[in-house]
Amino acid sequence: MPAGRTILASTIAKPFQEEVSKAVKQLKFVPKLVGFLANEDPAGKMYANWTSKTCESLGFTYELIEVNKNELETSLIKANKDDSINGIMVYFPVFGDKQDQYLQQLISPEKDVEGLNFLYYHNLYHNVRFLDPPANQQKSIIPCTSLAMVKILEYLGIYNTILPYGNRLYGKKVLIVNRSEVVGRPLAALLANDGAIVYSVDINNIQQFTRGDDLSEQRHKVLELSETETLEKLAPQCDVIITGVPSESYKFPTNLVTHGTTVINFSSNKNFNDDIKERAGLYVPSIGKVTIAILLRNLLRLIHNKQIRQGEEAN
Amino acid sequence: MPAGRTILASTIAKPFQEEVSKAVKQLKFVPKLVGFLANEDPAGKMYANWTSKTCESLGFTYELIEVNKNELETSLIKANKDDSINGIMVYFPVFGDKQDQYLQQLISPEKDVEGLNFLYYHNLYHNVRFLDPPANQQKSIIPCTSLAMVKILEYLGIYNTILPYGNRLYGKKVLIVNRSEVVGRPLAALLANDGAIVYSVDINNIQQFTRGDDLSEQRHKVLELSETETLEKLAPQCDVIITGVPSESYKFPTNLVTHGTTVINFSSNKNFNDDIKERAGLYVPSIGKVTIAILLRNLLRLIHNKQIRQGEEAN
Repeated sequence: MPAGRTILASTIAKPFQEEVSKAVKQLKFVPKLVGFLANEDPAGKMYANWTSKTCESLGFTYELIEVNKNELETSLIKANKDDSINGIMVYFPVFGDKQDQYLQQLISPEKDVEGLNFLYYHNLYHNVRFLDPPANQQKSIIPCTSLAMVKILEYLGIYNTILPYGNRLYGKKVLIVNRSEVVGRPLAALLANDGAIVYSVDINNIQQFTRGDDLSEQRHKVLELSETETLEKLAPQCDVIITGVPSESYKFPTNLVTHGTTVINFSSNKNFNDDIKERAGLYVPSIGKVTIAILLRNLLRLIHNKQIRQGEEAN
Repeated sequence: MPAGRTILASTIAKPFQEEVSKAVKQLKFVPKLVGFLANEDPAGKMYANWTSKTCESLGFTYELIEVNKNELETSLIKANKDDSINGIMVYFPVFGDKQDQYLQQLISPEKDVEGLNFLYYHNLYHNVRFLDPPANQQKSIIPCTSLAMVKILEYLGIYNTILPYGNRLYGKKVLIVNRSEVVGRPLAALLANDGAIVYSVDINNIQQFTRGDDLSEQRHKVLELSETETLEKLAPQCDVIITGVPSESYKFPTNLVTHGTTVINFSSNKNFNDDIKERAGLYVPSIGKVTIAILLRNLLRLIHNKQIRQGEEAN
C-alpha cells in the first residue's frame, strides 16, 4: 500500500465541469465550438470524438469540420467571421511544420479557446493578466494545458492560498521535462510568475525560470544552468515533477524522485513506470479531462470578454 | 515589501476560540480550569492573568490558586478529587528540578489540560490516537504546544489535506531547534508520525525523526545524524523551520533560510531577526494565543472523554 495517493484527472475535472455546465445555463444561447480536422491522424479523430461528447454533456454544441489541409486556411477565415461560432480549435499537426504556426495564429483571438494566439502567450510571458488595463474587466486567456496544470496544482494543495495572489508558489521547486512552445516553456514561465523556481529540462540543457529568490522581479527571468546542475542533482530537490515527453519508450527515472514528491504526467504516453506510486506523495498519471474542461472554461471566458466589450461599445 | 506574509497567532487562534466558545455553550455547566502558581516568577503571574482573561471571554471559569511550593503536592491531590474542577495546570518551574516532573505526573490524566501526563506522551510517541481502542470514542490528549503547532501548520497549508489522514506531511522537511521533553522532542515525533522528515536540533547534535522514506513504519524512528550533516547543510533544504530557544540573545541565522520557507517561533523570546520577513514565505513570530485556545479545546476533550466513559458505565 503506497503512502501517497493517485489522483485521476476525472476527479480534478469534476468541479470545473460543474462550473462550466452551470455557467452555460446562464447564457441566453448555446455556445458553439468548432473543431477542424485536416489530417488522417486517428488520434486526432479520437480526441475530436471525445471533445464532442464532453461538449454535449456539458451543454455546448460541437461541430467537427473535416477539410483537406489546403482548404484549412480558407475555412478558418470563414469561421472567424461566422457569428454562430464562438470557439475554434484545430487538431494539430496539420502540415507538421511552421505552416501550422501560421494557421494557429490565423484563428481570431476572440475565438481562440486553446489560448494559442501570440497575444495570449505574450501576456503569459509578461505576467499580464488582463486584456484591458486599467479597467481589468477582461481576463487574458491562458493556454489551456498550462492553465489545466495550474488548476491541478491548486487542487493538489501546491498553490498555498494563504500566500498573496501571484506569489502562491513561493518556496516551491518544480521540474518540467518538456520545453515545447505550446506547453513546456509557457508553463515554466507561468509557474515562475506565480513564485516557483522552475527547472525546465529539454534534450539540450536545463534552464531555470525564476522571479529571483525573493520574488523581487515582476516577471520571471531565464537562466541557462551550468553542466554541473544535472537532472540527477536537481530532480531530488523538487517538490513537483511534471513530464510531457511524447515518446512511448521514455520513462523518468524513479530513483531521482524523492519520496513524497508530487508527480504529474501530461504526455499522452506514460512517462513513469508503475513503481512511481511507491514514491510519489501525489501522482496524477494523465490530465486530458482537466484540459478539456478548462478549454470550455476558456470558451466561456471569451464569450464573457466579448459581452464586456459590447457593453462598453453600447455605453 | 516582502514577497511572503507574516501571520499573527491571534488570526490563527480565532477559529479555535470560536469553536471552543460555541462548544462551551452546548454544555449544561460552566467548566472550571484551575491554575496553580507556586513560585514568585512574574512571568508565571502574567501568563496566569492572560489565561484568566481568555477563559472568561470564552465562557469558562478560571481560578488562580497561589500556594507555597511545599504545599503544591497536597493541593494537587485535593484538586484531582474535587468534582467542581475540570482542568488543572501548574505554572512551572516550581522547584526547577526533577521534582517538577513528579508534580506534573501527579495531575490526574482526566484533568491534565496541558497533556503532559506520561500516558499522553506515550500515545504521542507511539502514534496511538485514541484512549479506548477498538471503540475509538475517546481521543488521546496531545500536549498543547505541540498540538497548537500542528494546527498552525494546518492553517498555513503545510499539512496537505488531499493526502491520507496521518500522512499529510509526506514529502515535507521540518527543522526544529529545541529538543526539550515538554515541546521539542514530542513535536518532532508528532510531525514525523504525520509523514514529515524532521531534523531535531539541540546544542549537542542533530537527530532525524522519520517513518522511513516511504512511510513504511507505523511510527517514527530516531537516527542520530553524522557530524557532516550540519545545520548549514540541512536548514536550507527545509520547508519549515521552527524555533523554541529560551534565550534573549539567540537568533537563528537568516542566511540559512531559503526564500519561501515557512518560519515559526514558539519561544517567548524572538528567535529571528526582522530580516527573516524578507526570506520567509510565511512567518509566525509567536504562538501563545493559539496554545491557550488549544489548551481550552483540550479541556473540552477531557470533558467529552469523561462523558463517554460515564455513558459506557451507565449502559
